[in-house]
Amino acid sequence: MTRLPSPRHRFETDEDPALPAWAARYRAVRLDSERLCLPLCIEDFVIQTTDEASPAKWHLAHVSWFFETFILNEYLPGYACYDKRYRMLFNSYYEQIGEFHPRPARGFLSRPTVDEVYRYRTHVDQHMLALLDDPRDRPWHEILERLEIGLHHEQQHQELLLTDIKRNFSVNPLRPAYRVDLPTPPVGPRPALEWLDYEGGLVDTGHHGPGFCFDNELPRHRVFLNPFRFASRLVTNGEYLAFMEAGGYRNPALWLSDGWAQVQKHGWRSPLYWERIGGEWWQYTLAGLRRLAPDEPVCHISHYEAEAYASWVGRRLPTEDEWEHAACASLCSPTDEGVADHGGSGGAGAERGDTDLGVRHDDEEPPPAAAWPNGNLRNSGYLQPVVAPAAAGPVQLFGDVWEHTRSAYLPYPGFRPAAGALGEYNGKFMSGQMVLRGGSCVTPDDHIRPSYRNFFYPHERWQFQGLRLAGDPD
Amino acid sequence: MTRLPSPRHRFETDEDPALPAWAARYRAVRLDSERLCLPLCIEDFVIQTTDEASPAKWHLAHVSWFFETFILNEYLPGYACYDKRYRMLFNSYYEQIGEFHPRPARGFLSRPTVDEVYRYRTHVDQHMLALLDDPRDRPWHEILERLEIGLHHEQQHQELLLTDIKRNFSVNPLRPAYRVDLPTPPVGPRPALEWLDYEGGLVDTGHHGPGFCFDNELPRHRVFLNPFRFASRLVTNGEYLAFMEAGGYRNPALWLSDGWAQVQKHGWRSPLYWERIGGEWWQYTLAGLRRLAPDEPVCHISHYEAEAYASWVGRRLPTEDEWEHAACASLCSPTDEGVADHGGSGGAGAERGDTDLGVRHDDEEPPPAAAWPNGNLRNSGYLQPVVAPAAAGPVQLFGDVWEHTRSAYLPYPGFRPAAGALGEYNGKFMSGQMVLRGGSCVTPDDHIRPSYRNFFYPHERWQFQGLRLAGDPD
Amino acid sequence: MTRLPSPRHRFETDEDPALPAWAARYRAVRLDSERLCLPLCIEDFVIQTTDEASPAKWHLAHVSWFFETFILNEYLPGYACYDKRYRMLFNSYYEQIGEFHPRPARGFLSRPTVDEVYRYRTHVDQHMLALLDDPRDRPWHEILERLEIGLHHEQQHQELLLTDIKRNFSVNPLRPAYRVDLPTPPVGPRPALEWLDYEGGLVDTGHHGPGFCFDNELPRHRVFLNPFRFASRLVTNGEYLAFMEAGGYRNPALWLSDGWAQVQKHGWRSPLYWERIGGEWWQYTLAGLRRLAPDEPVCHISHYEAEAYASWVGRRLPTEDEWEHAACASLCSPTDEGVADHGGSGGAGAERGDTDLGVRHDDEEPPPAAAWPNGNLRNSGYLQPVVAPAAAGPVQLFGDVWEHTRSAYLPYPGFRPAAGALGEYNGKFMSGQMVLRGGSCVTPDDHIRPSYRNFFYPHERWQFQGLRLAGDPD
Amino acid sequence: MTRLPSPRHRFETDEDPALPAWAARYRAVRLDSERLCLPLCIEDFVIQTTDEASPAKWHLAHVSWFFETFILNEYLPGYACYDKRYRMLFNSYYEQIGEFHPRPARGFLSRPTVDEVYRYRTHVDQHMLALLDDPRDRPWHEILERLEIGLHHEQQHQELLLTDIKRNFSVNPLRPAYRVDLPTPPVGPRPALEWLDYEGGLVDTGHHGPGFCFDNELPRHRVFLNPFRFASRLVTNGEYLAFMEAGGYRNPALWLSDGWAQVQKHGWRSPLYWERIGGEWWQYTLAGLRRLAPDEPVCHISHYEAEAYASWVGRRLPTEDEWEHAACASLCSPTDEGVADHGGSGGAGAERGDTDLGVRHDDEEPPPAAAWPNGNLRNSGYLQPVVAPAAAGPVQLFGDVWEHTRSAYLPYPGFRPAAGALGEYNGKFMSGQMVLRGGSCVTPDDHIRPSYRNFFYPHERWQFQGLRLAGDPD
Repeated sequence: MTRLPSPRHRFETDEDPALPAWAARYRAVRLDSERLCLPLCIEDFVIQTTDEASPAKWHLAHVSWFFETFILNEYLPGYACYDKRYRMLFNSYYEQIGEFHPRPARGFLSRPTVDEVYRYRTHVDQHMLALLDDPRDRPWHEILERLEIGLHHEQQHQELLLTDIKRNFSVNPLRPAYRVDLPTPPVGPRPALEWLDYEGGLVDTGHHGPGFCFDNELPRHRVFLNPFRFASRLVTNGEYLAFMEAGGYRNPALWLSDGWAQVQKHGWRSPLYWERIGGEWWQYTLAGLRRLAPDEPVCHISHYEAEAYASWVGRRLPTEDEWEHAACASLCSPTDEGVADHGGSGGAGAERGDTDLGVRHDDEEPPPAAAWPNGNLRNSGYLQPVVAPAAAGPVQLFGDVWEHTRSAYLPYPGFRPAAGALGEYNGKFMSGQMVLRGGSCVTPDDHIRPSYRNFFYPHERWQFQGLRLAGDPD
Repeated sequence: MTRLPSPRHRFETDEDPALPAWAARYRAVRLDSERLCLPLCIEDFVIQTTDEASPAKWHLAHVSWFFETFILNEYLPGYACYDKRYRMLFNSYYEQIGEFHPRPARGFLSRPTVDEVYRYRTHVDQHMLALLDDPRDRPWHEILERLEIGLHHEQQHQELLLTDIKRNFSVNPLRPAYRVDLPTPPVGPRPALEWLDYEGGLVDTGHHGPGFCFDNELPRHRVFLNPFRFASRLVTNGEYLAFMEAGGYRNPALWLSDGWAQVQKHGWRSPLYWERIGGEWWQYTLAGLRRLAPDEPVCHISHYEAEAYASWVGRRLPTEDEWEHAACASLCSPTDEGVADHGGSGGAGAERGDTDLGVRHDDEEPPPAAAWPNGNLRNSGYLQPVVAPAAAGPVQLFGDVWEHTRSAYLPYPGFRPAAGALGEYNGKFMSGQMVLRGGSCVTPDDHIRPSYRNFFYPHERWQFQGLRLAGDPD
Repeated sequence: MTRLPSPRHRFETDEDPALPAWAARYRAVRLDSERLCLPLCIEDFVIQTTDEASPAKWHLAHVSWFFETFILNEYLPGYACYDKRYRMLFNSYYEQIGEFHPRPARGFLSRPTVDEVYRYRTHVDQHMLALLDDPRDRPWHEILERLEIGLHHEQQHQELLLTDIKRNFSVNPLRPAYRVDLPTPPVGPRPALEWLDYEGGLVDTGHHGPGFCFDNELPRHRVFLNPFRFASRLVTNGEYLAFMEAGGYRNPALWLSDGWAQVQKHGWRSPLYWERIGGEWWQYTLAGLRRLAPDEPVCHISHYEAEAYASWVGRRLPTEDEWEHAACASLCSPTDEGVADHGGSGGAGAERGDTDLGVRHDDEEPPPAAAWPNGNLRNSGYLQPVVAPAAAGPVQLFGDVWEHTRSAYLPYPGFRPAAGALGEYNGKFMSGQMVLRGGSCVTPDDHIRPSYRNFFYPHERWQFQGLRLAGDPD
Repeated sequence: MTRLPSPRHRFETDEDPALPAWAARYRAVRLDSERLCLPLCIEDFVIQTTDEASPAKWHLAHVSWFFETFILNEYLPGYACYDKRYRMLFNSYYEQIGEFHPRPARGFLSRPTVDEVYRYRTHVDQHMLALLDDPRDRPWHEILERLEIGLHHEQQHQELLLTDIKRNFSVNPLRPAYRVDLPTPPVGPRPALEWLDYEGGLVDTGHHGPGFCFDNELPRHRVFLNPFRFASRLVTNGEYLAFMEAGGYRNPALWLSDGWAQVQKHGWRSPLYWERIGGEWWQYTLAGLRRLAPDEPVCHISHYEAEAYASWVGRRLPTEDEWEHAACASLCSPTDEGVADHGGSGGAGAERGDTDLGVRHDDEEPPPAAAWPNGNLRNSGYLQPVVAPAAAGPVQLFGDVWEHTRSAYLPYPGFRPAAGALGEYNGKFMSGQMVLRGGSCVTPDDHIRPSYRNFFYPHERWQFQGLRLAGDPD
């Protein structure tokens, strides 16, 4: 995936908008989406095999619709809509924009064809670049704020392109591969799971620093954390298999009530994409069926399964605040301090005591992702999570699997969604879903950050979702 | 659509199998299927928007699977399956062949691609033609019997290709046309509806003569018909609109109980494909949206709607025996006798009294379809039903719309399905469905015959289904 | 069950209406309903455990509503409705009367209480009897026609009271008995199944004679029957068990397509009410759980199961015309002629040749039920079907189980439903259901007649439904 | 409702178990349940009109099952089960006890009859009182801990008895009243809504003190609260009506995405139990239909509706921690300090600064409910929420309606469910539900406490659920 430094202009004025850098960034992100589709046949762009997984064609068009709707229609005088019927067809869920084609029916549309969708993309791109190439007096702070959201929006859909292709291919008895040329990750052994202790206390959480974030990562606010323990690495396939073999999917005492109902309703007996063939476990991947590698992180499990596993081992999931605190500490500590020194009010040099309340300010902005320690973000190129590195933990925080937390997806204190239709981007989903953290092996690298809050319903499994254990001090 | 004389060898011996004629027929039918797909984009081959309407790609593959499964695998020694996974993938519903991919999931398959499906067709064609080109000693009567079924089977799917494309396109808000080049049929006026009287009595019904028929058209058997009246032409859009405007869809007293439940459940307010746009009625056709033509036959109505309309006008639907009797009389009478002379034991010269029981034998085989009177089968080229000709009735019997009857689809007395998996072709569906007669404007011409029994559930509307009234003598 | 001679006045004039006999008949039928409820606790009157089985309380009220709505409201001047809200509450399905409480919600009503429902019955009875006690000038032919329908209607609900109590009790893990005092029927052995041959030909079918019938049994009309064979007795539990043990419920080749779908959807493995306990088969009955008696008729099977069983033994179900023909012949023949003489145009003395068409007129009205031969109608008192008597067949025609036929429930030629709301009684259900004949062990004896057409959906099993085989001549 | 001082022995030893006081308490609580059922007819005990609302009969039996299962079976040697089939029949959801009768089928059981259920209660009572009357050496700390849970469990079901009767009666077109003798509450005017400011900071939350609580109220733990505003009283019917009249139910911009889906799916247009009759709004209550009183608190709204209303007025729901903090402050402050002094680290005398972290310890146990200020708990006797008193706020905290919060129902930090089946009481439901606080007008008075966490799915409305606004400082 192409990685460009994000333009850091933070939209406070309309002057000096650094348009050429933004244009370059726009081009790069747009190109990434199309590169992801290169291995697809035309037929592959069309299908939708479940409500949750949209067709590739729809993703490509919808992200273009986003720029057209929120930027070109509003800021480019005289802009002529490519096709006014697309306003409804490629609206995902913005009630304030108007009607939208129903989500479960996205796979019912053979037209516009793939070719036509690419022409639509080209049309949008030409006008977007024309806009960015013309430095006349405009409300640039508004435009660029929307542009940046649009680019991150497109990156979200780049991830969805891959998760949805995997989902849509997986039900085909032919088990087609998205890419047969994907390298096989190195096999284990996995390092031993170690428990890292954090002192907790008053900490600040939520996004800070000049970089981009979504509205749901704000405002940064203070929380009180009890002391907690945090696993050094993710739970592996082999460890999860032990849970299965111990009857985990048959023992209701381990499950949340709603989770047990799902197990029974859907006959769950293993993670999604696991198949038992000839007495052995295989896993459907973007490279096709592969024999299950016991040391790789377990993946494609729902929140319910993560909870049940944690119950079985007598531990629990971390809260999103614990996760963020541990992740920031991992990134911000100037030295690799090891297990004993994680967090805590008397702890790491990166944290300053607040004389009034003893709060620690993790004010230091995380370093650029490329500089993150511990082998994080190594996964590009495998399109699956890989065995943990043998480094001091916590490892595998970023870019392996989305890590289940025990936190419901709710507004931060003081949260206010944006005005208008863009306010529907995140806020209206703050009900019934759970927070996942860390980014997965199919998340664009520069789309990952410690404060990022992903959210899914507790029964969903089609994302690259895995599990890190947490616990209370003994 | 290419029309070839059907080879008339009726499989009584394995000698002189007229293989070249069969090979020519095979080529012609197979080519017809592919011609029907010429206007499609690749994406159009993939989608399935409702359980009832399969993807075009699936139809093309399934009809090939039929030849492979029932002929090549059994009669061509050493035949190598194109892909053994297709045995399940393209099995429609033959339990005795083994598992089949679930019908509602046919649109979930992007692979095999359209290109691959065509390669599969070519592979099957090459081996079929090789078989037919080699007159060595084989059980030709079995092979050709299956071949003939296979060709009629493919013709059924040619019709379904069109009805399913229409259905799948219709839910797309862009309302794409299958063919924009279709001619607009001439407008009315429709002739007045006349009532033709039939005396009934003992008649024989069911297929007879040397031509092909499906097992469900046999055995020919005797039935007793009461005197009945038969409408000279189909009910028109304009007549049906009067029913709608009189509150037909809001008056439960007109409906069968199950029909009224459908009206309420689905919010039916008009036939399928009718749309109210700007105060006027339009109709979605294979040529796209067209303004409703009041004199054309009403189409795409369910059995329930046909029943309700008939109740509203104080008439009823014909039984399938009445329909077949009237249709045969129309074809077999040596002269155009007009209304007064239809049927009846004292009637037309084509009917001989049976001294014992007074039964009439309509033994004369119907003439070739091309010779049928009254403008029947004029519709090729419009792909929609057209205004009735001003000829002496009954008109529009063949090739306009499938005509609803009040007969449930049940076995004829003495019916026996074939042995083995081919016995599942028709017999196992003899429950819950109603018989329709006559063939539609998208039925291949040489696939239509008076004894043909089509069958659909009483709520289904996606076929070209219309309505002719019948009644009892005053 | 009390049996009174039905008043035979056939409503041709308003004079001499025989009111005292009608009043006596009314009292007797009304009392029968209440007698059936004597074994019930108050709680038992309330429950509804499936859409198809209404609460006892609802039955008691609805049959009273019928008299109130169709007689008292229209013919008794100044009649004051007991509670005007009951018009909606106890309307079953008469759209022309107005709204009705939804069928699946009949068990949601704790009020009116059982006591209140009995008061409602008393109110209606007092007014009905006052009406019948006052021979002033009224449209008696209309009133008595409706009264007679109302009495037969109440008898239908007497049967439903029992079938619904059985159904509603059966899902209670305590398996309560409706009556613990029911005698155990004598055990076998069953007589051997013999095949009785009928010549068929032109016969008249449908109700005839002065007795009551529903509109769907009319008009009497002529049909042509092919020669057929008819089993001398019903299929037994033991015979059906052999089908089960031979894998009948696992072999799709035996089933209608819709039937196989039901088997899979509901996991059918045996008739309704059969339970496997400790390695043995038991059957839930109105007397509670009883060990399965192999020589008793199989009961509580759907049309689909009856069809599958018949396929398995290589036979078929009779048509309703065949059944009625055989049943009438059984009743009308002056002597017990044995197998060889059943039916046939050259046959029994009860049948006269029609010189024109050879039609046989079974014009002799069946004798009173009490005089029917062959042990029919012996079952009162067991409330379950019992072992066939060792008489010359056909036996078990009446009052054992409703016998499945292969005939769809459709209008007879020339059928016209009554005008107004009473026209909804039967006609609007002529879609999707199958005809059953003969009456069951819980049908009131004087409610059974050869021309009676009962109808249920092919998946329904909660009535006392069983199976007699038929076939074509070898 | 009888109110007895709860025995305060906290189970630390097995000595001095104060058995007579416990026996008295047991008798009182058991009697309360039966008193609640006095107005019911036998039929009313049986019905279940929706999965969520169990039959009264089931409640009466299930609470007895609880004592039998968790106490008598385990601690009374030689105890003979009343009916061993009840173990399954009246198990609600304890997987570790074994199977349970499915919840949606509780209304399918006419047996055991009401009379039998009362005999079951008597049997359990006799043995429970025998146990408590015999002070021999037993593990009293275990027994009494379970006894206390069992009594609170029965109190929960006393509330459910009323909410479920209301729900089950409400669908009856006769709209029966549970009690026609209920007094009509005094009408308004409501006091003006005032905003009370809280400083927040570090506070402790969760149950403390020696009184009873459920496991989900523990452990008491520290949280950080941002400053917040809290409405002095509940939102009224009149205020909610303004939201409705402003199109609240038609404007998706106000709703959570899942909430809007519910509005459309169920056609919500008002709170549950509101009816529009003759141009006016009525409300179904336990006394039958009453005209809507605009100054009474709005009730029977889902979480989604509460959220939408709050959005419409530009406010939000309180978190459960904010609510508990305000409620405790209201009870614990020695004087009525008014709006300005609520909470805050520099605030009320009841709060001591923690030198390290500035945490406030609300360590003072709340006073007995009977002593609570501000007219709380005045509602007994109306069985509906009533107009707010004109006292200094916050008022209506306890015993009016369950107040929606924006907090998901999740485990407190360090939460551990009890071992064994009793651990299923609360913990396994910590998924997908939201916390409600405060108790309603049908909650037993001595079952209400500030730390009580009730939980329902966000679409549920059949409890007495209402709404208090909160907000962030301006």
